[in-house]
Amino acid sequence: MDVTTILGIAIAFGLILGGQALEGGHVGSILQLTAALIVFGGTIGATMVAYPRKEFVRGMKLLRLAFTEPRSDLAALTAKLVDFASVARRDGVLALEARLAEIGDPFLRRALQFVVDGVDANVTRSTLEAAIDTDYEENAAGAKVWESAGGFAPTIGILGAVLGLIHVMENLNDPSKLGGGIAVAFVATVYGVGAANILFLPIATKLKRKLGAERDRKTLVTEAVLSIQEGLNPRVLEERLRAFTGFEAAPAPGGAAQKAA
Amino acid sequence: MDVTTILGIAIAFGLILGGQALEGGHVGSILQLTAALIVFGGTIGATMVAYPRKEFVRGMKLLRLAFTEPRSDLAALTAKLVDFASVARRDGVLALEARLAEIGDPFLRRALQFVVDGVDANVTRSTLEAAIDTDYEENAAGAKVWESAGGFAPTIGILGAVLGLIHVMENLNDPSKLGGGIAVAFVATVYGVGAANILFLPIATKLKRKLGAERDRKTLVTEAVLSIQEGLNPRVLEERLRAFTGFEAAPAPGGAAQKAA
Amino acid sequence: MDVTTILGIAIAFGLILGGQALEGGHVGSILQLTAALIVFGGTIGATMVAYPRKEFVRGMKLLRLAFTEPRSDLAALTAKLVDFASVARRDGVLALEARLAEIGDPFLRRALQFVVDGVDANVTRSTLEAAIDTDYEENAAGAKVWESAGGFAPTIGILGAVLGLIHVMENLNDPSKLGGGIAVAFVATVYGVGAANILFLPIATKLKRKLGAERDRKTLVTEAVLSIQEGLNPRVLEERLRAFTGFEAAPAPGGAAQKAA
Amino acid sequence: MDVTTILGIAIAFGLILGGQALEGGHVGSILQLTAALIVFGGTIGATMVAYPRKEFVRGMKLLRLAFTEPRSDLAALTAKLVDFASVARRDGVLALEARLAEIGDPFLRRALQFVVDGVDANVTRSTLEAAIDTDYEENAAGAKVWESAGGFAPTIGILGAVLGLIHVMENLNDPSKLGGGIAVAFVATVYGVGAANILFLPIATKLKRKLGAERDRKTLVTEAVLSIQEGLNPRVLEERLRAFTGFEAAPAPGGAAQKAA
Amino acid sequence: MDVTTILGIAIAFGLILGGQALEGGHVGSILQLTAALIVFGGTIGATMVAYPRKEFVRGMKLLRLAFTEPRSDLAALTAKLVDFASVARRDGVLALEARLAEIGDPFLRRALQFVVDGVDANVTRSTLEAAIDTDYEENAAGAKVWESAGGFAPTIGILGAVLGLIHVMENLNDPSKLGGGIAVAFVATVYGVGAANILFLPIATKLKRKLGAERDRKTLVTEAVLSIQEGLNPRVLEERLRAFTGFEAAPAPGGAAQKAA
Repeated sequence: MDVTTILGIAIAFGLILGGQALEGGHVGSILQLTAALIVFGGTIGATMVAYPRKEFVRGMKLLRLAFTEPRSDLAALTAKLVDFASVARRDGVLALEARLAEIGDPFLRRALQFVVDGVDANVTRSTLEAAIDTDYEENAAGAKVWESAGGFAPTIGILGAVLGLIHVMENLNDPSKLGGGIAVAFVATVYGVGAANILFLPIATKLKRKLGAERDRKTLVTEAVLSIQEGLNPRVLEERLRAFTGFEAAPAPGGAAQKAA
Repeated sequence: MDVTTILGIAIAFGLILGGQALEGGHVGSILQLTAALIVFGGTIGATMVAYPRKEFVRGMKLLRLAFTEPRSDLAALTAKLVDFASVARRDGVLALEARLAEIGDPFLRRALQFVVDGVDANVTRSTLEAAIDTDYEENAAGAKVWESAGGFAPTIGILGAVLGLIHVMENLNDPSKLGGGIAVAFVATVYGVGAANILFLPIATKLKRKLGAERDRKTLVTEAVLSIQEGLNPRVLEERLRAFTGFEAAPAPGGAAQKAA
Repeated sequence: MDVTTILGIAIAFGLILGGQALEGGHVGSILQLTAALIVFGGTIGATMVAYPRKEFVRGMKLLRLAFTEPRSDLAALTAKLVDFASVARRDGVLALEARLAEIGDPFLRRALQFVVDGVDANVTRSTLEAAIDTDYEENAAGAKVWESAGGFAPTIGILGAVLGLIHVMENLNDPSKLGGGIAVAFVATVYGVGAANILFLPIATKLKRKLGAERDRKTLVTEAVLSIQEGLNPRVLEERLRAFTGFEAAPAPGGAAQKAA
Repeated sequence: MDVTTILGIAIAFGLILGGQALEGGHVGSILQLTAALIVFGGTIGATMVAYPRKEFVRGMKLLRLAFTEPRSDLAALTAKLVDFASVARRDGVLALEARLAEIGDPFLRRALQFVVDGVDANVTRSTLEAAIDTDYEENAAGAKVWESAGGFAPTIGILGAVLGLIHVMENLNDPSKLGGGIAVAFVATVYGVGAANILFLPIATKLKRKLGAERDRKTLVTEAVLSIQEGLNPRVLEERLRAFTGFEAAPAPGGAAQKAA
Repeated sequence: MDVTTILGIAIAFGLILGGQALEGGHVGSILQLTAALIVFGGTIGATMVAYPRKEFVRGMKLLRLAFTEPRSDLAALTAKLVDFASVARRDGVLALEARLAEIGDPFLRRALQFVVDGVDANVTRSTLEAAIDTDYEENAAGAKVWESAGGFAPTIGILGAVLGLIHVMENLNDPSKLGGGIAVAFVATVYGVGAANILFLPIATKLKRKLGAERDRKTLVTEAVLSIQEGLNPRVLEERLRAFTGFEAAPAPGGAAQKAA
């Protein structure tokens, strides 16, 4: 479970509605079926027009990733890769075959399969890199679906506001209908701006950052697997992999950027 | 037929007009010839100024692509390419000549023709890549026509709104003409914002994504054809081509990004 | 004469003013000397501050290019280059010297002069590429002048609007002056938004696209001239040059992106 | 202590509140708990949704860097590196081992350790560069947290303003509540725009510039350490390192760009 | 003296104030100490927060460059470089030593010093290129200070406007104070939008273009000096340097882009 996503949504909606209540406003006054139909209908429609079906569906499925925490423990992964390197150096790469079944991460298993099968290192590298790129591009297209929704929502909100104001203008003589029109107008703006800035755009950003971290993780696996095939010394491999997680994260004698002299 | 394009437009217009009707608004109140002339006339004019005739025409022709589904079945394509690789390895590349006539895809046919003609691999690669780039750039220019239209429409809508308000100001003494001016003002905004966000910008995005997929498909064909010329083992070719469609799409023992450990 | 530029401006202004007239508005009500002085004076001034004199002047001179059609017939150019390649292959590159005088395109003539002079191919390539880049960059700077004008105009329009409203505020007690202030305010917005979206930004886009096409044409010439120097087979050269104009443009057995399988 | 950060905040808030006071406004009229809850709650929530926990925390920790001055004296660093080069050239790289303990900068110490350990130059370079990139990317993600907060705050401010106006509309009959609603509306805008433009966005920019300078410093160290391993002449090394700090900064016989002929 | 900068500012302010006067407005009505304190105080403060002290100071110093014309006569420079090439070819590079003292341009003098000192060409190239990059990056950071000021000013102007309107709301019962508040509100917008669009952003653009031209000039010098070291024929060098200034600028038999066939 991704704590910041859930806590962030709770804080944003809680404090906004809380502030509203504090001032004596009713939550009911910002619940407007008409405004919701216009803003969310228009946004969903525009986003469907913008993306091919496959990418739209992927965007919907990726929503789950925004709320879950991927188990990407780089320290444990590094330890496992160094262990495989020791096995390969001691007993040959074929000895890794017995270990394949115990690997939960499908990318690592496929990558090691290339080594066990004795595929040429250049082919392994280009194949793994092509797969990393393709998987990232396709998932990133799903994240862009949310970014586009975040771009459309505020303007569709304004469209709803103007539609509401036109309705108000038509009923200037009938003050009883005036309030309704203005309410739709303002609430449509609130829905468009709020959905974009508290949900759609932040979710798009979180998805992109998690997909980027996943891509970095796979690049680390690729480097490690190619080093294992080369028969690199496990200790040197450990040093190289540590650089991929940065020096500042490591228990170094000193530390953060601001202390550097 | 591209389901998401048609469904998206239906959902967006249906729910926006439905919401409007629910509140008691008449559809007639947002049908305004004057506003339409100003917004669409201005947008079409600005877009014509912005693009050379060839690119403007291409943009208009590309509209069809936004509503149709290209038949790009990558699995079938991969199977066909692997089959050609088997033929070439068994009977030589000249044996592919007999198969050329049955190929429906003009790019694949042209690419294989290079192999059959025994053109040097470097020339084949540079020629095919230049053609892919040129075709993509020219089509992308057509997609940019829609993006520019989506950029001009809302501001021309505001221009129409201000023109309407000027008209209102001139007739402050004649309340009967007041409504008309305000209606043009607001409806022009609705037309500009709506056309940009529900039609022009989403269509531009969909065109760019489909053109990108087509370019990726041609790159896959280029890689495959060059591998066939090299006499690559069909099984290895199959593995390489699968990487171009990503590991996550393949029936792998595991799966999506969020399950990776 | 660039038809789309002239037709686009005519359509945009025609339909906007036509719509305005249809509603009973007078063209005179949007002719405001004060607003014009503020918006166009401010925009010209800001653009002059933004660009060095040489680039500002080049931007002014480039305006002509937005209204004229460059005679870049790529098919005729390709034919001529293939013809030169035949001559060079048959009679040697020196035989091209006699043809130099008949070449109207100064870039092609200079490029062939390098070949006739027997300059080293690497020097020819790097010199021609440097010249293409420099010429493009300098012309593109001129196109950016229009883009900047299109960025400044709407905000200067708002500045004019606010100045007009300040004037209105000062004369709240004298209703006869009220109309004038509001008119300047609104008309300044119309001028700023209209000039930017119907003239400045579209003209900048058209200039950039034409300059890009001219750069592509010169790149084609460079490739061809270097191939002629190499003594490449004219038929192979023809194939290579055709790739630079794209496969889809060629009379291929099939066609557009959406038909690919 | 970073003088410009602290002075800048003081000047901005001082002059804005001073101007406000000069006109007779009370500071109290822009202190609004409700507006603060909505704007800051919404912004914090949206930013938490947008970033993984690790990056959000890093963003918070980086705030300290915006207010402190890193001690990056490039002249002293260059002198130290040239000194190490002299030692290495005279007594061999192992002689540097004794100096490692006195080095305060952890990156320099780690880099020299590679040299002392006799690691292959290519491995040293790729490892150090990977570490520089990873450390920069991770810190830059923290700076982006502030940039995103600066992007969300103004729109959440508008959301707060519209919520306030809805409240006003509901209480049109009760003029005593009218003022409160309008105040929340306007103050929410002030909070959103002010926090974004005086704090969040400027802090993001400052963090990015300091992180960029730190990355440049580490790149300088990497180049120097590799030159030391190569046994480069200390005087030539000094010249090369000076180029990394630019010619204009150096006491050259002439000077700034505008004097060049 | 940079004519376009000074003339541009004069035209912009002259015509805007002239238009204002024409309509009967007083210049005095847009002179508002309070608005100036808020807008310029807030903008200066925000910009100081955004940039490290060194870069902020450099930005201030660069202001001079926006108003002065660098004496970069590329034709004279080319002639001088070709002359040096002749000297070096005839009498050897050491003969250039006597000429060093007469060179006014510090970059050219330093670059030739490398040649005279017999430094290896690769070291000369990498050192000069590093210095060009560093000097450009550091000056460009100063130009970005103005760009950021141009980004902050309009929003701080809106902040000032909202503060003024809050003040108006508080004094609705006292009409005599009403005008003052609205004036601050509107004038703050004028200051923010005007300063950004007539001064800050155009100055940032001009600085960037001049710094870019200076970088191109230094790149030209670098290429020339390395060619001199190589002993390139002065006539060939002249041809190469001419390409760096573009073919279109040269007295070619034909001309501008739009005439090409």
